[in-house]
Formats: sequence, C-alpha cells, structure tokens
Amino acid sequence: MDRYETLIPRPVTARGEAGTFELTRDTALVAAPGAEDAADAVRLLLAPLRLPLRPASDGTGLVVRLDPAVGGPEAYHLRVTPDGVELSASSVDGIRHATQTLRQLLPDAAWRSAPPAGTRWLLPCGTVSDAPALAWRGGMLDVSRHFFGKHTVMRYVDLFAMHRLNRLHLHLTDDQGWRIESRRYPRLHEVASHRPTTQAWYERQDRTDGTPHGGYFTLDDLAEMSTYAADRGVTLVPEIDLPGHASALLAAYPELGVGAHTVRSGWGISEAVVKPVPATVRFLTDVLAELTDALPGSYVHLGGDECLLRDWTTDPDVTGYMNTLGITDPVDLFGHFLRELAGYLSSRGRRAVMWDEGYVGGGALPDTIVTAWRGDGGARRGGGAADDVGRWPVYPTYFDYDQSDGADEPLSIGGPVTLPDVTAFDPAPADWSDTERAHVIGVQFQAWSEYIPDARHLDYMVFPRACALAEVAWTGGATANFDARLAGHLGRLSAAGCGDRPPPKSERGRRRADGTPIARVRAHLEKLSAHADVPTSLVSM
Amino acid sequence: MDRYETLIPRPVTARGEAGTFELTRDTALVAAPGAEDAADAVRLLLAPLRLPLRPASDGTGLVVRLDPAVGGPEAYHLRVTPDGVELSASSVDGIRHATQTLRQLLPDAAWRSAPPAGTRWLLPCGTVSDAPALAWRGGMLDVSRHFFGKHTVMRYVDLFAMHRLNRLHLHLTDDQGWRIESRRYPRLHEVASHRPTTQAWYERQDRTDGTPHGGYFTLDDLAEMSTYAADRGVTLVPEIDLPGHASALLAAYPELGVGAHTVRSGWGISEAVVKPVPATVRFLTDVLAELTDALPGSYVHLGGDECLLRDWTTDPDVTGYMNTLGITDPVDLFGHFLRELAGYLSSRGRRAVMWDEGYVGGGALPDTIVTAWRGDGGARRGGGAADDVGRWPVYPTYFDYDQSDGADEPLSIGGPVTLPDVTAFDPAPADWSDTERAHVIGVQFQAWSEYIPDARHLDYMVFPRACALAEVAWTGGATANFDARLAGHLGRLSAAGCGDRPPPKSERGRRRADGTPIARVRAHLEKLSAHADVPTSLVSM
Repeated sequence: MDRYETLIPRPVTARGEAGTFELTRDTALVAAPGAEDAADAVRLLLAPLRLPLRPASDGTGLVVRLDPAVGGPEAYHLRVTPDGVELSASSVDGIRHATQTLRQLLPDAAWRSAPPAGTRWLLPCGTVSDAPALAWRGGMLDVSRHFFGKHTVMRYVDLFAMHRLNRLHLHLTDDQGWRIESRRYPRLHEVASHRPTTQAWYERQDRTDGTPHGGYFTLDDLAEMSTYAADRGVTLVPEIDLPGHASALLAAYPELGVGAHTVRSGWGISEAVVKPVPATVRFLTDVLAELTDALPGSYVHLGGDECLLRDWTTDPDVTGYMNTLGITDPVDLFGHFLRELAGYLSSRGRRAVMWDEGYVGGGALPDTIVTAWRGDGGARRGGGAADDVGRWPVYPTYFDYDQSDGADEPLSIGGPVTLPDVTAFDPAPADWSDTERAHVIGVQFQAWSEYIPDARHLDYMVFPRACALAEVAWTGGATANFDARLAGHLGRLSAAGCGDRPPPKSERGRRRADGTPIARVRAHLEKLSAHADVPTSLVSM
Repeated sequence: MDRYETLIPRPVTARGEAGTFELTRDTALVAAPGAEDAADAVRLLLAPLRLPLRPASDGTGLVVRLDPAVGGPEAYHLRVTPDGVELSASSVDGIRHATQTLRQLLPDAAWRSAPPAGTRWLLPCGTVSDAPALAWRGGMLDVSRHFFGKHTVMRYVDLFAMHRLNRLHLHLTDDQGWRIESRRYPRLHEVASHRPTTQAWYERQDRTDGTPHGGYFTLDDLAEMSTYAADRGVTLVPEIDLPGHASALLAAYPELGVGAHTVRSGWGISEAVVKPVPATVRFLTDVLAELTDALPGSYVHLGGDECLLRDWTTDPDVTGYMNTLGITDPVDLFGHFLRELAGYLSSRGRRAVMWDEGYVGGGALPDTIVTAWRGDGGARRGGGAADDVGRWPVYPTYFDYDQSDGADEPLSIGGPVTLPDVTAFDPAPADWSDTERAHVIGVQFQAWSEYIPDARHLDYMVFPRACALAEVAWTGGATANFDARLAGHLGRLSAAGCGDRPPPKSERGRRRADGTPIARVRAHLEKLSAHADVPTSLVSM
C-alpha cells in the first residue's frame, strides 16, 4: 500500500513486490481475446507517454484483459511484475481506471501531453485492486453565467478522468445566457446567447463592467465534447433549466412567457418563468429532441430550481390551462409541467435529473434522479422513495464559494467551503435510514460561474477541492490524512496544466469590501434548508 | 483547381479527376520504405477522424512516401484517385502539409477532436502540388502582458499547423511579467511573474482593475509545448527581451539594474534597463542555458527593442565598464551587450533573433535574424547586409490593433489593421533591390496582449487576419479574392473551436471613449519609422 500512493486509496489492496518494470519503446500492448476496445482505451490514455505500444497477440508487455470475475462495473485489477503489467476489469471503464492508476505510479510527466527529454517510465512492482463506492462521481460547470468554450470543457474531461470522476454536468441555460445552438429556433443562439454587460460587484446590479459577454456550443460541438468524454469514461450531463431561470429564453422567444425580458446581466433569482402551456411544451420538446439527437448520454437535467410562479396566477393562458387540467394550485401545475418533459425524455431513452424543488414539487417520474442542494431534507425524502438521489448540498459541494475566510480570497458568491469541509463530507451519513442511504447514487461539486469569469479562475476555484471530492465519491465516505496525499498529487496537477500553478497569495484577487455577503448567504441557505419540503417558489426569496 | 478550394492556393496545380475516395475503418496507412516517421506524423494529424488507419506494408490506402525529387524542404505532392491516396514530399514537414491539405478536402468535422455521428470522409479525386514561398511563417503571442497557459499555446500550435504557419514566437518576458521558471534564480518565477493589479484604460495608468495577475511556464512546460509543436511542424521561438523591458526582472533581482523596480501594472515603455556588465551577462547566460536546455528549437529572440539607456550614462558600474572597454557611446555598449548574448547562443547552436533597434544598434552577429517592426528602414538595411530579415511592420502585422474603425470594436492599443491591409501585404516589394528582397525570410503577426486579457479575446483579435497572413506567407505576395476563400474556411475555424464563433456586434466589447489613441499611435509610429536607422533608445519616446 505504501508503494501505491494513489490519491483514491480505499478499498485498494496492494501487495508490494520487489523490483520495477520499465515501459519502453519496445513494450507491446497485448489485447486478450475480446479486449481490443479496452486496449484501444489504454492506448488513448497512455498516448502522452509517446511510446509506440505496438499491438501484439502474445508475449509480455502491457496485457489488457476483460474478465467478468473482476466484480463491479468499474472495478479493476492492476498487477506490475518485473516481467510486465496486467490490467483486468469486467468493463472498459474499469480498464480506464486501471490505466489512470498506472499513470499515477509513473513520474508526474505522465500527465503532460509530452514528457521532458530523458524521462524514464519506471513502474514499481505490486498489485492494486480497486472499485468505486458510488456510481455518480461528478462536477458541474456553469457555462451560462460565464461561457467557457469547448476546449476548456474537454480539458475538464481530462481532469475528471484523471480523478475517476465520471459525470460532467453542464449547466447550459440560465437567465444570463442560453448556450446551445438550435437549428429549429435560431434566436436561441443568435439572441439568447449574448448579454451587453455583466454585473461587476456582489449585490450591486447597478454596477456593471461594460463588457458584452456571450457564446454558445453548436450541436456538433456538444456531440464532439460528448464523444471526447465517452472515450475517457466520462458522461456529459446537459442541463436545460426550467421552468424558471428563463430570462434568456424569453428574451429570444417572449411568446413562451409573460411580459418583456432581456438576457440578464446581473445575478440573483429572476421572476422569468415559462408558461407551462402545450405550445411551450412542444417548443421545449423540440429543443430536447435536438439536444438528445446530438448527445448520446443517458441523462438530461431539467432544472426545476428557484422558480417563482407569480406569473402563473395572473396570466389568462395559464389560469385557463389550469382550469382545463382541473388544477388549482400552481405548484401542481409546476409538477405536471416537469413530468411532461421528464416523460418526453423517457420516450427518448433518457433519465431526467432535477433539483430537489422539482422533486418536492411533484415533477419527478419513478426513474428521475433528484439532485439535492438545499440541505438534506430533499435528499432524505428522495431517498425514502423509489428515486435515486444525488447528494450535493451547498456546503460542501459549491466550489464557487471561497476556500477560506482569508482576506486575500478573490471575490466570490459566499463561503467558505474549505478543503477539510470536503474531506469530512459523508455522502450517506450513518444516522440516515438504510433506505435513505441506499438511494444515494453519488456526489458532485458545483462551479457556478457568477464570479468565475475565465478558465484560469475556474481552475483556482475547483482545485484542489475536486481532488478531495473525488476521494469522497470513490470511497463513499469521509477521507482521512488527505493533506499528505495531496502534497504528492500537486505535481500531477501541475503537469496536467491545472491552475497553471497554485497562485501565491498576491495572485488571489480582489475581495468584496466587507464580510456581509457570507452571513447573508448562510442565512438564506438556512431558510431554504428549513423549507426543503416545498418548492422554493413558495418561499419568499 | 476549383475542386481544391485550399485556403493557400499558389503555386498549387490541381488536376480534376472523376470520382471520390472514402477514408473508412478499413483504410490502411502504408509507409513506403524509410517513411515510417512520416506515416506517424500523418497518423497524429488524422487522429481526429477516429479511423484505425492500420499500418500495412503494401496494398492500397493512404500511401506515404519520402521522395527527394519533390523539390524544396516543405514542398509536397498529394494525389487522390478512386483507388487511394498518395502523399509524397522530401521531408516529414512536407508530408504534414500534404496531410493538412487532405484535411481541408474533407468535411469541416476533420478539424474537430471527434466528428458528429454519421460523418463520412469523402475525398474528391485530383492532384495538388504545393510549396511555400517563405521559410518563416509565424505569429507572436505576448504571454507577458497577459499570461496564457500552456493549453492555449498548444491550441495555437494546432491552429498554426492548420494554416501552415511554422514559427510560434512566445514573448516570454517584459516589464509586466517574467514567464519562465528558473531553477537557478527562483525569484524570476516567484517574484517577477506576478503583478498586483493591471492598468484598465488606455493611457490612464492611474486607473487599474484591482485584480492581481500572474503565471509562468515551468521549464518542463516549455519542453512539453516545444515537443507538441515539433510534432506538428511548428518551431517555438522563445523571447527574452533585453536589455530594456526589464522591470519584472529587476523587481526580482535589483542588483542587475539601477534603482528600485516593481513588476509594472501599466503599459508603455519603461526606463528599466539591465546594467550590461559582466555579472549581468553571466546571470543572463545562465538563464539562456536553462532555456535552451529545455527547448530544442533553433532560435532564441533577444529583444533589443525600445530601450532607454539613460541609466547607463550615470551609473558608475556602467561608465567604469565602458572605460574598460574603451567605449564612449552607450549605443556601442548596447551593441556589445547584445553581441555577447548572441555569441553565447551561437555557442549553444542557436541563432539569435532581435528587433531592428538591436540590429541598427550593432547587436547582430552574422547569423542573427533581424525582425523589422518600425517600418521598412530596418528591413531594407538588414536585407542589404548578410542577415536574414523577418519583415513584420506594425502595419499590417500587429494584430493587437483594431480590425476596423467601427465604433463597436473592443478596447485596443490602436488601429485599424484591416483584413484587406493584410491580404495586400507584400513581404518583399518589387521596388526593393534584389538583394533586399532575397534576404526576407518571412513574415509573422504580432499579438501584443496589453488589451487582450484572455484566450477568447485572443482568438477574436488573431482570426481571421492570421488566415490572410498565412496565405501571404505561403505564397510570398499579396493575395487576391481572399474573401471568397475565407467564406469557405470559416466552418473549419469553427470546427477547430477557434473564437467560439465570430461574435455578433453586440459581443465585441467596450471601446475607448474617443479616437485620439489611434492618431497618437500613428504619429508615434511615423516618428519611429523616420528614425529606423538608430536605436529607439536615442529617440525621445
């Protein structure tokens, strides 16, 4: 075990053996019968070593074997002897994890796209057997509040794969920008993807930076990112946030809502909500059809969070439709609307995912995954029913929050969420019922981007907390002695070009003038948490 | 020819043949004897097609052949018939160009890292023979004024290779930041790589954005980028700007200069200059040793531009050293200093490159390349001697300048340099002497980054002007009918993720309040150009 300083250690069993094995230009890549695709996956992940890894049908080298006896869909077995390396798993995903562990055992240069001259690829002999505790290990990038292009997303795919994170959730739409091309409704990318300026300071929407901001992914971009991710064992999870957070959508297609809207330049919760009438549902299912045609993944997140339903009580289209349906409470209409979209996704072979307000508002179908952010009320209620629950409470999974209370932290939306907060995170606490615990399918971090203007700042906010979350997700529980392992991992992050170096304190940026926002956010979250059984729409924001 | 809508057309000869050839999973990659490395280069560049391209020793498919009879070091011949494809060249670089032309003939998705489902790789039959007119076809990224990480640089390597640009010049040091790790002098990266704030508005150094900025490349990062570039036929050209532009260097090691210095947060020309005494030369050759050990390329740019020598007339160390050397004019000491560094580079097997002030100040050795930015005086004087001359005058190669005089252009340092300005650029004008013309080795664009804060803005400023410059560099003269070819090329840029789309007008950002900077910059440049025979240091700035 001490030979294998893996970042994600439990339930690793490692047995030390004497000696080393060196990967060289003569090392062959040997696919056991039926393991050709798995060997291709190994070749892709080891391409940075710049070794030929010529295929061979027998002999020694890197032997890749698919073996159903290696239990669990992502479990793997890795053995290094002086004569060669064997990677075995029941799936290609397991082989990918074995390959990443192999890279961890090599010099840090294995995480570069090309190594410095003279690098030798020496592996210590030994055995590692490992498997993840949780099936959903992920992170969310908010590309609406600030747009990050496809190269940044694909770089994050690489970082996710390195950390065995297997779900990359893209928050593609919000009040501040719609980031998906639509061939059927082109105003979505022509109009809804750009705003003229951006709020510059927390809670002061009158102060903006005067700089237009925008961008979107074409459907081909989404297909490309999805394939790139799938090749590395990562599933892209797109989110279209509905029925609230709709300012950008309604700026482009005002007939879907009430009143006039613009793509928002400021933060906070808007009152923009789509009218949940059949014409809107048709429009949105058209958009979901385009999205699911482009993206082959298994999931689509439908949002359902922070939705103010005031327009629905006054608009005659909506009230008339409620009469038709025999619905009197707008919350029931909210649930009806989300169920319609979730049902459409089911018909396309996808599972809907929604924030916990959508679930407690009645929007979930039996196969819907609930992602609980407002404390544990929604998570436990979801876990008591037939649903799968993703548990990502604000504390400690919101990585847009400060990493410390230090005066030199950059401007952010709140905080802190410290590294020890993350390592202490227990995805399925012992004081929950067995049923509640059993329904927790995983955890992920959230990188909301109101105060993350570019990819370099994104790295600063996400790492190294994402390393800790990856351990929690892999092991299924709080992780101890993390700091020592992290010290050995920073060289890998640096080699991967993550963060372009941990910046010195002087680099960390400006900070809001006083500490009030932190207290305000905490109070707000406590209120949300106390109302976890009702949709936020009924909570005064 | 009409079948081959290559962006870089002359001296292409294309002969139409009937039919198509489709690259499929069954297509083999056939290396003729001795062309194994060339076939590897083809495989690397075609990896995005996601075809196995299995090696085969005979048979049809993609046949790669090294043939000395294909004239010129970068010339190539490409032939597509219904039975297969043949790429031939006298060098691997030529084979790379043939491969990029092959990609141009495929659907735009060939420029993605993975194609959308259902993409078919159909090639029209025909023949292309092509060769570049100029040996140095490049661009400069200024990573000092704003730091761009290695992933951005490597993405630019891909864009350069796509456009047959073969020199990527990195301006690694300047007053506003030193971007190279030094194991021997760690304060270079610990201190000189960060500044506490950045000037926010043109010519108003009192207004700053309050945001620290910094970053640097490790020596391993530089080695990695260099290898990545070499694999794609691109040579990295690092620049350490000396003896002026030295604020960051002197903030870290004040003993190399006179007085106290800080890493500058504002733009313009500083008075920071190193003392050209032996201790400084030793320090700098140590730094050049680290750099050249890390980077295997053939060139190092030494700067030599915009240097104010006032400190040299008052500092007793410098005046004493001048007495020792028997030098009375500081300009002669300036030349002596640059020749010492250029000589050190020669001893390490590298050619020095320097801006034209360095040349007219006497700093060049016989193998030094002069890069003439201040009009044509320096270029023609250099071209009349034994030197190679890179001709990149501000107009039209400074791509940090506005692309139009439109009121919606983003804040920039000056302008405009329009796309027609670039297509009309003649690297070696007919009214120059034959000798002057013969010494022009090439052209490159410059992306100074005072007003280019991030990689997305960089794309906006560099493209599509870089496409036009690539044609000028390849063909050696002004290029006609460019707009029509560009229209067919935009889909490739989009597929490559360049610019994340040409932004609509509303996206182009803020603009300075009045037009005075443009007039001011023009007047300044006219003055510089009129004094092209003397170092800028003697011109009142």
